[in-house]
Amino acid sequence: MSAQDLLKSLRDNTPLVHCITNYVAMNIAANVVLAAGASPAMVHAPEETADFTPICGALTINIGTLSTPWVESMVASARTAREKNVPWVLDPVAHFISDYRKDAAQKLMALRPTILRGNASEILAMAGETGAGKGADSGDSVGAAQAAATSLAQEYGSVVAITGPVDFVTDGAQSANVAGGSDIMPKVTALGCSQTALMGAYAACGPAFDAALATLAHFKVAGAKAAQHARGPGSFQMHFLDALYATTPDELTGVIRA
Amino acid sequence: MSAQDLLKSLRDNTPLVHCITNYVAMNIAANVVLAAGASPAMVHAPEETADFTPICGALTINIGTLSTPWVESMVASARTAREKNVPWVLDPVAHFISDYRKDAAQKLMALRPTILRGNASEILAMAGETGAGKGADSGDSVGAAQAAATSLAQEYGSVVAITGPVDFVTDGAQSANVAGGSDIMPKVTALGCSQTALMGAYAACGPAFDAALATLAHFKVAGAKAAQHARGPGSFQMHFLDALYATTPDELTGVIRA
Amino acid sequence: MSAQDLLKSLRDNTPLVHCITNYVAMNIAANVVLAAGASPAMVHAPEETADFTPICGALTINIGTLSTPWVESMVASARTAREKNVPWVLDPVAHFISDYRKDAAQKLMALRPTILRGNASEILAMAGETGAGKGADSGDSVGAAQAAATSLAQEYGSVVAITGPVDFVTDGAQSANVAGGSDIMPKVTALGCSQTALMGAYAACGPAFDAALATLAHFKVAGAKAAQHARGPGSFQMHFLDALYATTPDELTGVIRA
Repeated sequence: MSAQDLLKSLRDNTPLVHCITNYVAMNIAANVVLAAGASPAMVHAPEETADFTPICGALTINIGTLSTPWVESMVASARTAREKNVPWVLDPVAHFISDYRKDAAQKLMALRPTILRGNASEILAMAGETGAGKGADSGDSVGAAQAAATSLAQEYGSVVAITGPVDFVTDGAQSANVAGGSDIMPKVTALGCSQTALMGAYAACGPAFDAALATLAHFKVAGAKAAQHARGPGSFQMHFLDALYATTPDELTGVIRA
Repeated sequence: MSAQDLLKSLRDNTPLVHCITNYVAMNIAANVVLAAGASPAMVHAPEETADFTPICGALTINIGTLSTPWVESMVASARTAREKNVPWVLDPVAHFISDYRKDAAQKLMALRPTILRGNASEILAMAGETGAGKGADSGDSVGAAQAAATSLAQEYGSVVAITGPVDFVTDGAQSANVAGGSDIMPKVTALGCSQTALMGAYAACGPAFDAALATLAHFKVAGAKAAQHARGPGSFQMHFLDALYATTPDELTGVIRA
Repeated sequence: MSAQDLLKSLRDNTPLVHCITNYVAMNIAANVVLAAGASPAMVHAPEETADFTPICGALTINIGTLSTPWVESMVASARTAREKNVPWVLDPVAHFISDYRKDAAQKLMALRPTILRGNASEILAMAGETGAGKGADSGDSVGAAQAAATSLAQEYGSVVAITGPVDFVTDGAQSANVAGGSDIMPKVTALGCSQTALMGAYAACGPAFDAALATLAHFKVAGAKAAQHARGPGSFQMHFLDALYATTPDELTGVIRA
């Protein structure tokens, strides 16, 4: 399914996306999903997930800020998503910085996310390799993590997306790249986390591999537009939301390369 | 008390507003209250509420993101507010999406909020009717929920405000509408939640029915102004905060219709 | 170490800053640290701190929104920071509004923060004096709290920074002021909290007294620049992030007075 058709479908159907994300990202992630055209719902109570996850178009889980009850809620929601065939996206933020976080990421990965999205350091660490990441920012190049992404995709049956200056997506058999965006994007906090939330919205509209690509394309196109008007990370964030909102389906064509 | 006089009083007295709100809304709600001219305080520890609620001009409770300790804190704070005659506002965000959330909303409603604020789907569900809401966005028209609002107002002794393209406020006897704003407001997350926080600030300055109307008027006026300059939801949010700050008391006159 | 050299070092080394801050501040604090040139990490799980705090350049703790597990995490992280010689900054937001908050602030203060940063009301209350603060906004002048700051610095061996229209910094022996900024800064929520996070980044690059001054200077310079373009608190926040990003080391010279 083409990125154009996916964006049209997203705006026609405004899928409800169940997001369990970190405290830093909650507001901007909701704004990104709304600006793109879907409907975010930040819900984390373990008492709610059995009722709520099944009525959503997708679930997205980001482990940026963790605590015991949240990890329980993430695991329960991911399980519900699998049982009810709700596509779900995992964003294992900086999972290599502590044993606690590593365990949480492993538990979630074992539930075979529909899509795994991370930066190069996160994807390398998920495949058991040692990268140069120290916090939430990547210390490794996208290229260095491509083999790890492919083997993760094959082992878990997940689509794996590595984000960076040029994004890489694989389902273990086929792969593609997405280019564009702006150097300033890593200077705005939680844009990657917000992308995970939006990837859920796209995954609610079509096949996972195509949905991952369309999300990345939407970000790259909007990022490039925003950069034309931005004078720093503050104005970039504002223009980026405006650009996500204004991007037309046809604009997504040029940035994806199989 | 007129909306003009209420805004003057709000800016002269900068009432302290105790806000227990969701993680998505916390930052923008605080910015909305500050921009309008009052003083927000996001405090949720159950250990603090007995000390803190009584020294505030108002309490506002929004159930957007719930967990067991937060529900306890909400209930304790609402109880304290009632005992100490501190006006309080309830925002039962999407309370129909799970039994857990429904129970929390019912417990709080039983404590008879000074003002109940919600979208049409939320007000319908609070009155036991079935609406078309699926997440935080309304699936029903304001008009369809007016009878429900009136009967809730009569049953609980609360002022009830339904927000939408044209807002409706009732205390069970009298009612009024507020028109204006902008289509783009629902594309910015948590503006409704932020309005609840601001409604607390106004409720600290005068009678509940008038305070609800003044809040809605302030939002409609600022929203219309922001829309003149916005190029999408990102710039709308920025211009909206600027407009809340710049709005003069006299500008509130034109948008309220009894 | 001069403010210029500190900002150069911060941008060259992009120190990782472990931030335990309140829900209102998380996003803007991360954006402030990123825009200035360092790398924020919002991590609060008690299970992570022993692994994470020691690999960071600094720790910052802000008590704006508290709960029992967070207080435990703050205390454990501050202890780890002291043991591992990681500089740490304490921001005792409105610690006088409840006994619970007062106890938390006292426990943390007893762990002798490298830098204590607060507004005048917070510093007065920390020294056991009664101020006019009611919420997160100061009700007292910076001048009225200078003696309290000096005696706290001497008692705890901390650098103490009082922020306000003209900031004051002391290590108990020497002191300095920082002037500039804009009247509109208190109308944007959590800028003070964000400054605490940035102060951690500077403290990772040089001596605490110099780091506190450089942080305050960076804020005053960026604030004054942003005010030139802002039309209210919404646009101020955007321009402020852009200005933090664009500020050059040489611009920090003019605003510090010994």
